[in-house]
Amino acid sequence: MAQNVYDRPEFFDGYSRLRRSVEGLDGAPEWPVLRAMLPDIAGLRVADLGCGYGWFSRWAAEQGAAQVTAIDVSERMLARAREMGGDGRIDYRRGDLETLALPRGGFDLVYSSLAFHYVEDASRLYGMIADALAPGGRLVFSTEHPVYMGSARPGWIVAEDGRRTWPVDGYFREGERVSDWLSPGVVKHHRTIGTTFSALTGSGFTVERLVEFCPTPEQIARDPGLAEEIERPMFLLVSARR
Amino acid sequence: MAQNVYDRPEFFDGYSRLRRSVEGLDGAPEWPVLRAMLPDIAGLRVADLGCGYGWFSRWAAEQGAAQVTAIDVSERMLARAREMGGDGRIDYRRGDLETLALPRGGFDLVYSSLAFHYVEDASRLYGMIADALAPGGRLVFSTEHPVYMGSARPGWIVAEDGRRTWPVDGYFREGERVSDWLSPGVVKHHRTIGTTFSALTGSGFTVERLVEFCPTPEQIARDPGLAEEIERPMFLLVSARR
Repeated sequence: MAQNVYDRPEFFDGYSRLRRSVEGLDGAPEWPVLRAMLPDIAGLRVADLGCGYGWFSRWAAEQGAAQVTAIDVSERMLARAREMGGDGRIDYRRGDLETLALPRGGFDLVYSSLAFHYVEDASRLYGMIADALAPGGRLVFSTEHPVYMGSARPGWIVAEDGRRTWPVDGYFREGERVSDWLSPGVVKHHRTIGTTFSALTGSGFTVERLVEFCPTPEQIARDPGLAEEIERPMFLLVSARR
Repeated sequence: MAQNVYDRPEFFDGYSRLRRSVEGLDGAPEWPVLRAMLPDIAGLRVADLGCGYGWFSRWAAEQGAAQVTAIDVSERMLARAREMGGDGRIDYRRGDLETLALPRGGFDLVYSSLAFHYVEDASRLYGMIADALAPGGRLVFSTEHPVYMGSARPGWIVAEDGRRTWPVDGYFREGERVSDWLSPGVVKHHRTIGTTFSALTGSGFTVERLVEFCPTPEQIARDPGLAEEIERPMFLLVSARR
């Protein structure tokens, strides 16, 4: 099974204080871009992989999705998602993205926000999603950008003259990266953009959009901490058609 | 007009000593991957944009291309290409990729090796290429990877403990990058992967392959200097269908 850091108290507590946990979709700066990559949700059968507190699933139900299957590895996340209410159309279920199997052809849209970098076997996952999508269905997801998560020691390097750079090393050494985000020893899986692309096309997807998240000037004015995301690509956003 | 550094004596002399200039396609470590991205050349009408010494154009003629249009901005490069011989099917012509116009629907394959990062207006170029390709035609090209060329001061950073990292900064500040490669003040144009992708799809291309060049263990054994290309992505290789 994949590591489930969300059920660690310190991780869960830290996660619960993130802007994107408190404010939901509007607390995630990449959401406007990801939203623009989505098809019209009305009438679609939607799966939300790594649903967390279920913000996207509830939004999809509000948009008129025919049904929403919301999957997360963490019972604590699912419990919180259920508490936050919702809609009879949302089915919250426990599932591990390393082994999850969805019904063949059962979905029109599979969505995932910042979960796939925890998955070791992306090819298996994309293949399973391709099978779960009806023809013409779409996979839309965000993941940490390999430049952001690939270094053995990710962190700004400050030169004597104050110049700040983000380190790239071991870009082609794919595999585990251990970070101390909210909790020590969080395991992520580094893949190059080329590997992500070929794993998608190898599963029968056509990649329609590939976006590297960059904050807008308005977002930076509201939240100056986002300015550093001009310097390095933090998230990769992908829309792929079956 | 785009900067033409190739007609500077020091640049041309330096270029003429590169392995890829002396040995041709087999002197370029990314060639085996790029070659595998090409369709069967026999019978195709081919354009080679930024042909340099014409190695690819001659190879394409040998593979049975119906005709090869080899374009370069440098008269010196074209003169050398013509001297190196060739084939009645190769038409060497001077052209600037910023303003080049090719006949509508006149080609089945447009190829370019490491020239597009000198082009400022990539959207215009991709649009022109899309118009020049017959339906089903392909654009296959290599370009410097934005991680390789994006930093304001590209160069390895060596920490006190000997750790080497490649710097990323200003990734989303697209535009001119001035480097001192072979000659001072060489102007290149930095674009993110996301921008390259959307410029291609915006011109009507479907991106079929997107590869980040990584040397093989055999290549590194033969040429240990290539080992550093495991650490950072140097070239982006793309195949797109009209």
